[in-house]
Formats: sequence, C-alpha cells, structure tokens
Amino acid sequence: MPTFTADQLKNLGFGIFKAAGASDEEAEMVSQHLVNANLAGHDSHGVIRITAYVTMIKVGYKPYGYLCKIVPGSQIEIVRETETTALIDGHWGFGQVIAAKAMEIAIEKARKNGIGAVGVLHCNHIGRVGEYSMMAAEQGMIGISMCNSGRLVAPFGSMDRIMSTNPIAVAIPSGSKRPFLLDMATSVHAEGKVRVRRNRGESLPDGWLIDKEGTPSNNPEDLYAGGALLPLGRDIGYKGFGLAMIVDLLGGALTGHGCTSGEEYVGGNGTFMMAIKIDNFVDQEKFRSRVDELIRNVKNSRKAPDVEEILIPGEPEINSREERLAEGIFVSDKTWEDIKKTAKELEVDAEKLIK
Amino acid sequence: MPTFTADQLKNLGFGIFKAAGASDEEAEMVSQHLVNANLAGHDSHGVIRITAYVTMIKVGYKPYGYLCKIVPGSQIEIVRETETTALIDGHWGFGQVIAAKAMEIAIEKARKNGIGAVGVLHCNHIGRVGEYSMMAAEQGMIGISMCNSGRLVAPFGSMDRIMSTNPIAVAIPSGSKRPFLLDMATSVHAEGKVRVRRNRGESLPDGWLIDKEGTPSNNPEDLYAGGALLPLGRDIGYKGFGLAMIVDLLGGALTGHGCTSGEEYVGGNGTFMMAIKIDNFVDQEKFRSRVDELIRNVKNSRKAPDVEEILIPGEPEINSREERLAEGIFVSDKTWEDIKKTAKELEVDAEKLIK
Repeated sequence: MPTFTADQLKNLGFGIFKAAGASDEEAEMVSQHLVNANLAGHDSHGVIRITAYVTMIKVGYKPYGYLCKIVPGSQIEIVRETETTALIDGHWGFGQVIAAKAMEIAIEKARKNGIGAVGVLHCNHIGRVGEYSMMAAEQGMIGISMCNSGRLVAPFGSMDRIMSTNPIAVAIPSGSKRPFLLDMATSVHAEGKVRVRRNRGESLPDGWLIDKEGTPSNNPEDLYAGGALLPLGRDIGYKGFGLAMIVDLLGGALTGHGCTSGEEYVGGNGTFMMAIKIDNFVDQEKFRSRVDELIRNVKNSRKAPDVEEILIPGEPEINSREERLAEGIFVSDKTWEDIKKTAKELEVDAEKLIK
Repeated sequence: MPTFTADQLKNLGFGIFKAAGASDEEAEMVSQHLVNANLAGHDSHGVIRITAYVTMIKVGYKPYGYLCKIVPGSQIEIVRETETTALIDGHWGFGQVIAAKAMEIAIEKARKNGIGAVGVLHCNHIGRVGEYSMMAAEQGMIGISMCNSGRLVAPFGSMDRIMSTNPIAVAIPSGSKRPFLLDMATSVHAEGKVRVRRNRGESLPDGWLIDKEGTPSNNPEDLYAGGALLPLGRDIGYKGFGLAMIVDLLGGALTGHGCTSGEEYVGGNGTFMMAIKIDNFVDQEKFRSRVDELIRNVKNSRKAPDVEEILIPGEPEINSREERLAEGIFVSDKTWEDIKKTAKELEVDAEKLIK
C-alpha cells in the first residue's frame, strides 16, 4: 500500500483534473478537498474519487441510475437573492467548487447581516459536508451544511429506498484550534462504511441494512442489490428518518434540486447551508470560553468501561489530520492503480505528478 | 380516570394560574400550551405540570438540584438585537410565555429579513418544544427550536450526567393542514418516558439507561438515583451526543443561559429558535407541493412487516389531537387529585373551573 504526502496527492489530483478539462481554480479546490478528506480519515471521500470524477467529466456516471455529468468551467448562477439568503444554480459544475462558493456567500451574508442561508440546486457530489461547515467555524461563525443524494435509505417502517444518507454537519468554534464538528449521516451509517466492509469481505453488524424484500441482512452485497440502509435510531428510527426528511426538504424541496424520491431529482446533491454570526448574541471570546468549558466537562467526566478517551465530535478527524500530515496518507493498491490508469488515459503520468 | 374537554382543562389551568398570581396573558398562554401538549398526546408536558408550576411560583422547585422559581408578571428584555437576531432575557417568567414571544420575534424578523434567530436566557421550562416550531409553520415558514435543561444524559463514552435530553424540533409546512414536525429528544428517549414506565412499575428496554456506576440498567429508578440516559444512537451514540452538544452550545453558550454542566447554569431552559422564510428560495405553493410529494412517496412505499401505516413525523401528534378533540382528554386520578389539591390551596374550586 503506497504512502503519499498531502502535497503529493494534491499535485496528483490537480494534474489529473487539469488534464480532464478543469480550470486551475476547479482543479485546485477539488484536489484540496479530496486530500482534506483523506487527512481527516474519511478515505471514502478522498482521492479514491478522482477516477469517478474524471468519468463524470468524460462520459457521465450512474451511481443511482441517473447519468451524472460534471461540466468543467460551469459558473454558478444566483437565481434569487436577498440580504440574508441566496438560491444558487450550480449548472452541474464540480460539487466541491459550487458548495464552497455557496458557503462563502453564506458567510459573507452572515458577516454583514447576522445570518446567511444558501440553497444550491444542480450540484454534483460535494464530498465531505463537514468541510463547508468548517469554513464558517474558521471565520468564527457557526456553520451548518446538509445535502441529499440518491436513493439508499428506507423511511422508518418502510422497506423501500426513498431517501439518501442525508448528512448534516455543524461546526462550532472553540477557544482552541480544535473546533466542534459533528458531521453525520442521518442513516445508521454512510454508504461508504458498507462499501468498506464489502471490499474486505466482512459482514455487517445487525441493524444497518435490510435486503430488497425488507428482511434484516448482514450481507453488504444486499445494499447493492436493491436493499436499503436503515435510519439512525433503529427501533427509534423515526428520529433518524425525521432528520433525513428535513435534509431532503431543505436540500431538495427548498432549492428545487428535487427531493431524492421526487420527479425533479436527477442525481447529485441538493444542498442547504447556513452561517450564523456569534457576535450578534454574545462576544466571541466569551462564547469560545463556554464552548471550552463544555468540552472540558465532557472530556473530564468518568469514562465508561473500555473507553480510553472521551472524544468530542470532530476530534477523531483532527487527530487523523495531525497523524497523516506527519506520517503520510496510505492509499490502497487498487485505488492507486485506478488513479494511474485514469491519468494514463488523460495522457499524464501519475508517477511524475507525485515527484 | 376522568375525561375532560380541551376547553375544560384550559379553564382549569387558566383559573389556577390566575389564582397563583399570573396575569391574564400568562394564564392564557400557559394553560393553552399545556392543553395543546395533552391534545398532541404528550401528557408528560400537559396539565400534569400545573401543580409543579404553581409550586415554582409559590416556593420554587428543585428538579435537578437548582431552585427554579417562576416570577409571574416578568417582562422579557431584549438584550441585543439586529435585523435578523435577538438575544432575550426572560427574567425567569413562565417559560411558555417567554418562548412564544421569542418565536414571534423570530417570525417577524424572518418575514422582514428572510431569517430570524432568537436566543433566550433566564427562561423556565418552556414545555413542548415542537409547539414553537409549529408557530412558524403556521405562518408558512420553517421553524426550528431547541433547548437545554438539567443534567440527565451521559456523553458517548462517559458515565456521568453532563447534558440534558436537549430536544430539537423542526416544523415544515406542507400543502395540507398536516405539517411535518420532528420533535425529538437527542437522547434515546425523553425523561418523561422513563417516568411513565417507573409509574407503571415496568422495566426499561436495553440501551436506555446506565446506573450511577455506569452499568447498563433496565430499572427506571436508577435514573433518579444518579444514573444517566444514553444518547440517541447507542453504539453510534456519538451522533445523539453530537446533536445534544449543538443544542447545549446554541441554547446555553450562545445565549448566556449556560450549558447544562457549566458554571452559569442555574436551571431552566436555555433556548434557541429560528424561522426561515420559504419564499426567499422558492414560491410557497411550489415548495408545499414538493413536501406533499415526499410525504406521498414515503407513505405509499412498501410497509415493513407488522407496520400498519408509515407515519410522517408529526402525524402521531395530529392524529392524537383529532382523536382527543373528539373524545376528550383522559387525566389520571393521581394528576386530577393533585390539581384539585393545588387549586384548593389557592382557594379556588377545581370542580367549578371545569363546569
């Protein structure tokens, strides 16, 4: 399994996306996003995506039965706008570029007017949602991001795929360089976690999955044969189901991207983002000291048996980042071979890009 | 078990609160809120609270070790305000009155400026959180409400009570008179559900509770002997834990009410509310038709075994309301006796109030 530095992978992604037709800005933003996901430990959202994105540029890709194409060079269009809100048509450019621009607009509106909320339609895969919420936290704001996607998850009490794993990410700045970041699928787990187990030939724990006939299953293959992931909460799955509906309605219905099961939906991520200016409520320093106090109280509480350290949401990602910046990022042989092949088809040499 | 009409219980609450020193407005709002909770099927937040609220007015009440007093006649004070945000000091008036006024302000700001967000400190028990989100939905907006409270819930990986059940409620209007309403504790269940099982002498299902030594327990008494409720998600309880931290930080840290485990916290509900104007993103009718489409797709999907009907969040409450408006509201003998005793101590006749 080869190991790379973040810079190497960044150059790799940049070079390949450029060769595939992306602008400098697009290649820069998307490759940085993917490397950041690897650094955070979320390899399912990292450079493994390079190959799929190039396919989406060249011929399109059908992860959920819809033909998803990335149109390099697309410009976002602001469809509706007020002092506090914007609706943005992404015109099917790179999801990461559209989403980052949407959050920049939300942050700018929040800076001027206290709160900014931005909806995005016609947007490809935006990657790791937490990344956008973190943009707000880095500006001393509360950041909220969420998006829908293709059919994967059954409503509570149903055995059909109606919604997606519909993640929600909320970032809140603390007094240190370790902000709070909850970045979670509203299903039991994200699809990536099922894929990882499938690739390893492992079975799934109880409560993740039903097969296409609605029977509980431990076989990851069943998800790819028409089965469905279950909503967060299992026997109280109406909670995860409810959260998923909120994401579908804000990301899909409010934006016009379409709810996952809706007639308008044709793939990609209907996205909703928000930034909230803390200073309108309380002085920034005071707020941060209160956040630190809660983090301290949580971390210093009595640990449950077999728990080594109580982790704050976002901590595993920050720990992974520090570790991988120091020790490098492992990429599986299969992923590396795929990337090399993709590069070759674009007539660039992956080995040279990582020199 | 006596049965009452909503109007009877409303008059009962109104008369008792008036006798306890509440203004007409306060008695009206609080009694209506409690009856609405009964109608919605949430008896734990209904007229059963009359006795506790009167105690809180007269001598104070220590549900979590803090002396909580309700100060009738308190006026809310706007501490900070912008076009889109407000921070409100409730000065320890009736929680329901403060919270409703806060949501009215959020709605008004959203009407004018697209979004309104209001934080509330020094606020007593606000009751059923979903009620406030519904105020926004009734105005054709998306309503979000959340609050913290006293120590009850262990962080994921901890065995100490650090947070509360920290509910989040989101209401989204549909094309019918049945809006979407998710109103959920971020713990496995709200405390009221444990109390109900305790009162019935029943044991708890696995995964709800740990005792004060951190051992999983099925005995509801253990919660009241220093144990803790577990966060939503159980083995993936970092999700419920993360949601609870968000509520604690928005309700407690952003407002200055104090996070549950923080030094500033002295009881009550640190509250955060938001209203979002739909029309800034998409025309109201179009949005509602998309919501209806999702609801239809969910309800018409294949039902899991033993499921009679797939319910949308908020539906059980609406069904209960219709049923109880028609058939009346059952009140337990114990609650009715307590209310009569409370009334008598205030020199009013409960029997007369329900005539």
